[in-house]
Amino acid sequence: MADGAGNLFAFHGGGAGGWRVRAIAAVVGEGLPAVARLTIAPAAGPIPPSLMPWPLYGIVSNVRYATGAEVGQLRARQSGLGRPEASLAALIPIRKSAAWWKLAQDERRAIFEETSHHTAIGLEYLPAVARQLYHCRDIGGAFDFLTWFEFAPEHEAGFDALVARLRASREWTYVDREVDIRLIREG
Amino acid sequence: MADGAGNLFAFHGGGAGGWRVRAIAAVVGEGLPAVARLTIAPAAGPIPPSLMPWPLYGIVSNVRYATGAEVGQLRARQSGLGRPEASLAALIPIRKSAAWWKLAQDERRAIFEETSHHTAIGLEYLPAVARQLYHCRDIGGAFDFLTWFEFAPEHEAGFDALVARLRASREWTYVDREVDIRLIREG
Repeated sequence: MADGAGNLFAFHGGGAGGWRVRAIAAVVGEGLPAVARLTIAPAAGPIPPSLMPWPLYGIVSNVRYATGAEVGQLRARQSGLGRPEASLAALIPIRKSAAWWKLAQDERRAIFEETSHHTAIGLEYLPAVARQLYHCRDIGGAFDFLTWFEFAPEHEAGFDALVARLRASREWTYVDREVDIRLIREG
Repeated sequence: MADGAGNLFAFHGGGAGGWRVRAIAAVVGEGLPAVARLTIAPAAGPIPPSLMPWPLYGIVSNVRYATGAEVGQLRARQSGLGRPEASLAALIPIRKSAAWWKLAQDERRAIFEETSHHTAIGLEYLPAVARQLYHCRDIGGAFDFLTWFEFAPEHEAGFDALVARLRASREWTYVDREVDIRLIREG
């Protein structure tokens, strides 16, 4: 993705779109209203004021925790979005607590990786699971991150295991809102 | 400052405001149009679309590089904004290159602190210089950061030395736009 401007994306939930919603589950905290379909589209600022939960907005930004070695491992193994065989997707918006954001950079890094092994666990599921992180805390979103994953049906059990392992981590004790939306490509 | 929403601020340059502009200098890259005065005000999203350079928008966010030990040292020594004796201010908007943002977290941290000693140098000028960092890269601003400093007239030479030391650092080889705006409180 490009740097700077042009990194804003809108996740439109509604009656139209190439991704059909299979399930929306509130994992921690308040859920999201049900929608039938989802479209992800590049957006131009400004983000319109809205009391509606949809659309969700997120920004592709620089990495915040990964080291050069980890970025190298991820790049060597990862697959891109839009693979024809990856007909399933998950959109998991997440918010972390004020206690998390008050931590210093090394304290957050230590919980993220040295304690919770976030990147190391994720690496085990590459290249089967393609992923993209969108940031939304600094643009005033209801969540801090929109996490997006694409995988083939035969890798859904593996993806469920990945998510379960992360939810059992110390990092996840700082997650105070999480919604799990599963989708299937029909576009 | 509060977490999450409510952290957006607008720097209005124009004919009104409690800070009178003494000088605007283009340090690296394109400068900014001259204005007579500046107001800093909390802003509510959305950020209106504009081709004008003013206002500049920035967000108070979490620390990105400082360790817990460094945050502790900063908190122990720093002074707050708005001290009556701190009648001078500097607004220094900065943009870093694409090469900077492509670096991994540990690579940026190593340049920021272990090589360039950004926090260690800044600590030498506390509490004389009060400071606040505003982020704007992820909201599509023309700059990545708005850096704001307040100090008493007798500390201006020290502030100039601080800025000169940082501009001579390796970190600053990644700065591709920087404007230095000096102000005096008249509000």
